[in-house]
Amino acid sequence: MEIERVDAGITDVDGVYCCGVKEGKYGLGIVKCKGKVAGVFTLNKIKAAPVIVTKEHIKGGEIEGIIVNSGNANAFTGEQGIKNAKRMAEILAEKLGTDPSKIAVASTGVIGVQLDMEWIEKTFEAIFPKLDSSRESSHNFAKAIITTDAFTKEYAVKTGDVIIAGVAKGAGMIAPNMATMLAFIFTDADFDSNELQEMLKIAVDRSFNVTVVDGDTSTNDMVLLVATGKKKVDRGIFQKGLNEVCINLAKMIARDGEGASKLIEVYVKGAKSEEDAFKAAKSVVSSILVKTAVFGNDPNWGRVVAAIGYSGAEVDEDLTLILEGDGESVILVDRGKNMDTRKKAKEIMRNSKEIKFIVDLHKGNAEGYAIGCDLTYDYVKLNAKYTT
Amino acid sequence: MEIERVDAGITDVDGVYCCGVKEGKYGLGIVKCKGKVAGVFTLNKIKAAPVIVTKEHIKGGEIEGIIVNSGNANAFTGEQGIKNAKRMAEILAEKLGTDPSKIAVASTGVIGVQLDMEWIEKTFEAIFPKLDSSRESSHNFAKAIITTDAFTKEYAVKTGDVIIAGVAKGAGMIAPNMATMLAFIFTDADFDSNELQEMLKIAVDRSFNVTVVDGDTSTNDMVLLVATGKKKVDRGIFQKGLNEVCINLAKMIARDGEGASKLIEVYVKGAKSEEDAFKAAKSVVSSILVKTAVFGNDPNWGRVVAAIGYSGAEVDEDLTLILEGDGESVILVDRGKNMDTRKKAKEIMRNSKEIKFIVDLHKGNAEGYAIGCDLTYDYVKLNAKYTT
Repeated sequence: MEIERVDAGITDVDGVYCCGVKEGKYGLGIVKCKGKVAGVFTLNKIKAAPVIVTKEHIKGGEIEGIIVNSGNANAFTGEQGIKNAKRMAEILAEKLGTDPSKIAVASTGVIGVQLDMEWIEKTFEAIFPKLDSSRESSHNFAKAIITTDAFTKEYAVKTGDVIIAGVAKGAGMIAPNMATMLAFIFTDADFDSNELQEMLKIAVDRSFNVTVVDGDTSTNDMVLLVATGKKKVDRGIFQKGLNEVCINLAKMIARDGEGASKLIEVYVKGAKSEEDAFKAAKSVVSSILVKTAVFGNDPNWGRVVAAIGYSGAEVDEDLTLILEGDGESVILVDRGKNMDTRKKAKEIMRNSKEIKFIVDLHKGNAEGYAIGCDLTYDYVKLNAKYTT
Repeated sequence: MEIERVDAGITDVDGVYCCGVKEGKYGLGIVKCKGKVAGVFTLNKIKAAPVIVTKEHIKGGEIEGIIVNSGNANAFTGEQGIKNAKRMAEILAEKLGTDPSKIAVASTGVIGVQLDMEWIEKTFEAIFPKLDSSRESSHNFAKAIITTDAFTKEYAVKTGDVIIAGVAKGAGMIAPNMATMLAFIFTDADFDSNELQEMLKIAVDRSFNVTVVDGDTSTNDMVLLVATGKKKVDRGIFQKGLNEVCINLAKMIARDGEGASKLIEVYVKGAKSEEDAFKAAKSVVSSILVKTAVFGNDPNWGRVVAAIGYSGAEVDEDLTLILEGDGESVILVDRGKNMDTRKKAKEIMRNSKEIKFIVDLHKGNAEGYAIGCDLTYDYVKLNAKYTT
């Protein structure tokens, strides 16, 4: 069965209703979505209160709603922070006539400051009546959860009559205050929460987890997948569709990387293991030397090779490296030999907004990839000038 | 016994003679130094020819000379590269009347281009007669091995009548072409090569290995320690002196980090293990968000805390964080509590060229540290505009 991108919001998923509002730096979004749930959370040892609360709440495998605020991460906020996150779950649970343990809570914004619960409760009361399945509400939710993002991030696919629609926020860590990567993905497919968890883990490992803007992991990162269970679909097909949604949301985050001017993709093949392939690819997109070289349209393949060399993957000089730009490509290194193609490569880089490095390690058959962006003056400016 | 810094070059070590010359982008340096040797090399899987050759040559534990060129890394150069590195050892061995296996070879510079052996042999013939123990020659050697460095790096200490004198080059990887960190340390102390190897490993692990300019590991990194064996000294004292030389050379490299305007030091105490302490400290100096915040004089402690959180060290919110500048300090977080001292902290940062973060994890008694520098517009400029 084919997977095709569709122009749809999360409310196009049968059983999903939402609303959202942004007031200056602060935003609040609500989703009503009775279904099975799976979640992947930050590995940062310092976890924000909403992460702790939501991990606990989704253990039962079912939720009925999600409440998200932006502008304040509710991180590094101690006992009071936990109380506030629980209170957010409570106010939505009350309205939906369910238990707070059926509500997921997410936050993004400033670290170390207590939530303004008065604003949250007041705003919640004001927007809850707007909960509906309109496309506008879907977009309002997408806007409510962004912080320093330059644009909202929505992506949806269909396979047969099953829809998978996601919304995300994230643009690198402009400040831990504005740190977080959040994604909420909805489908009308029918899977139990264990199946969803397994599939989400695979999709996240191959998308958000191989996307590097600045390499920092926030205290608040969270990806949720909710299935309203209206339709049956083959698991293999669903996994593909889910991967596609996650990869495209991840690319939007990389493209929106603070100050970024170019998207960088790295494909590694011929690796001894899949682990090696992903390690090598991630090492290249994480290298700030590669990132600055791409910004400067400098086909400095030595930096790419060095990053592969220290990635931990099995590799030696006998590798092949191809540069691909918008519609053109050139071999930089052929089985260890410098091809002296820098001039052509520079031209391709200059003309391209999306740069791909394709590496063949000639060590085996495994493949992997990673997504990133360049490092620009604007990145430094944004991050140095941000005042806490 | 006291360890005191002394104004000395490597030629002040009894038995060490050197010379060096820099011609434009290219340099050549020679050391005559009959003694026991130890070495620590890059962990990059792609190793430059001189690294491969020198690792082999020092296996016997003794050398009589070192030959170093700058401007060309002799990396990613295949069989011809190995031949050229061996040839460098040969020409010095011939003059010193010894076997090429008693010569160490090091290179730093462009990747993927064969050495200009004609220039090297011609220059070698021209400078070899200048080999002597003058302070000028010592400084000429220091100049011969630098590439994009803003200044030469020499540091020496004395304990009793034993001297430990080192010279280094490195300023971050402005290009893999100009990538390498090299250090050559000499002493008149008497130790066998196994003892030297053990002590060098400790010193490097606690200095160069906790110094982060851009986090990239070059194909050519090399630290050699040569002992001419003229004088006896207590091993514990010697280790302290060696650590001091290595830490100070490492700090010079960080201070010379491309475009760097401030030195960043992170001290972690109260860690569960020494490994945890060093991990947490290294994570902070590696964070480009912390680096840009320091550049912008922004006391954005959330970034420091987040970097500790994802370091892998055992940590929770119950930590204390102190900012120290030139002669002043302020508590940012006290056992998990935001102290709201940003204004004072900003002032300290603005007035200081050296910024210290002191972290107490309250998990145990282990300590660790790391050294780094800020990330500036000039870093991006240098690295983006460098043309291969």
